[in-house]
Amino acid sequence: MKTYKLLIEYDGTNLHGWQVQPGVPSVQAEIERALSVVTGLQPGVIGSGRTDAGVHARGQVAHFCLPESIDSRKLQGALNGLLPRAIRIIDVVEVSNDFHARYSASSRTYEYRVSVQPRALDAGTRWLLKGKPDFSAMNKAAEFLIGRRDFSAFCRVRSETRNRVCSVVSAAWIPEERDGDWVFRITADRFIHGMVRTIVGALMDVGLGKVSEDEFLQILRSKDRRRAGQAAPARGLVLQEVEYPDHD
Amino acid sequence: MKTYKLLIEYDGTNLHGWQVQPGVPSVQAEIERALSVVTGLQPGVIGSGRTDAGVHARGQVAHFCLPESIDSRKLQGALNGLLPRAIRIIDVVEVSNDFHARYSASSRTYEYRVSVQPRALDAGTRWLLKGKPDFSAMNKAAEFLIGRRDFSAFCRVRSETRNRVCSVVSAAWIPEERDGDWVFRITADRFIHGMVRTIVGALMDVGLGKVSEDEFLQILRSKDRRRAGQAAPARGLVLQEVEYPDHD
Repeated sequence: MKTYKLLIEYDGTNLHGWQVQPGVPSVQAEIERALSVVTGLQPGVIGSGRTDAGVHARGQVAHFCLPESIDSRKLQGALNGLLPRAIRIIDVVEVSNDFHARYSASSRTYEYRVSVQPRALDAGTRWLLKGKPDFSAMNKAAEFLIGRRDFSAFCRVRSETRNRVCSVVSAAWIPEERDGDWVFRITADRFIHGMVRTIVGALMDVGLGKVSEDEFLQILRSKDRRRAGQAAPARGLVLQEVEYPDHD
Repeated sequence: MKTYKLLIEYDGTNLHGWQVQPGVPSVQAEIERALSVVTGLQPGVIGSGRTDAGVHARGQVAHFCLPESIDSRKLQGALNGLLPRAIRIIDVVEVSNDFHARYSASSRTYEYRVSVQPRALDAGTRWLLKGKPDFSAMNKAAEFLIGRRDFSAFCRVRSETRNRVCSVVSAAWIPEERDGDWVFRITADRFIHGMVRTIVGALMDVGLGKVSEDEFLQILRSKDRRRAGQAAPARGLVLQEVEYPDHD
């Protein structure tokens, strides 16, 4: 058996997320369909994790297995020829059989982009803000996220995940080269459903003075999802990178 | 009389360039229409220069005059409310009456983006290359562009511009943060019609080994447009910035 690792970029705007769902286009379903055309087999594709409808990826990772080896370059070309333009295979690498896109990953990095300026270009990958939040206050509050914590307060309301403890390695707002553009970069061992967008929404409340930095810490400690405000829109979120310590 | 300077961003994908043309959407026409709705007047809008159909801008500058002063913030909001989403007014500033978007400009900076990787995100603002050009050879050839030169060899074939002498301050390919993405950044006092795209096309011929660095220099010196190959596609080009030494 041969195991292949895929590096995948997608524009989530018109996709219903990673996970196969009946009747709507998903990244996983499109890749599985293309793979079955190319190989004549039905190898299931396992992603590093799900992304929601409308969320993008620059570095989603997935794996699948084939009974025999196949030329990686040719496979990449064939898949990109069959996939919709919104999904591109950036790389195909043969990896050892103990590689698992989900279980082997040591951390994930998400980026969330906002702009306080009107934008004509790149508007599909950022949240265009009306007000000008205080990013320095948001960065002070973001420091409370770092460490091993229960993130129940920043979980999607109807999440079925029981274990809501995640280790956040870093979380900060960084100004981008272009005036008025900021990116929130967060790295953790794992993320629970809706976590980044709920955190961004709550940090925005801090930045706009609706919630103090102390109140943000209390919300985090409360583990009560009803206390964090509205989640930020999906369009600004990108799964940037999935890190694997022992592979590549 | 009051003079206003506009900073404009646009996604040129579905626009027929800056300049008003009968029957097709142009940036200038859209802004003039919105301005006439807001002010009840028909102030002509003067741009720093034209951009071709499909070319984008992050920092196009234009000016117009009004008989009396108007609130800049409110004007910006009103214009953005009326303009199509592909055109955004980033800033409105009242400037002195001797400001002229075209004549006062000391230099312009264009950026041209390419990627040697497949791309799902940002695909509308870059040229997706099939091969992997030698960017170091392209940078050696690009050095020949710097200085005060006659750019007739890199002009659009049917250009009506007689003076084709431009002073190029800098011109180089720079790797972007993301693997496989490169940007060609060129600053000059002025650009003639089709110049950046023709230069990028010719540099790509160098990068792919079709033309040597010496031949590139000979093409430049020949002043013969027929010797430079095909221009690069419009989608990769962005008017990044227009510099004004005595204003702001």
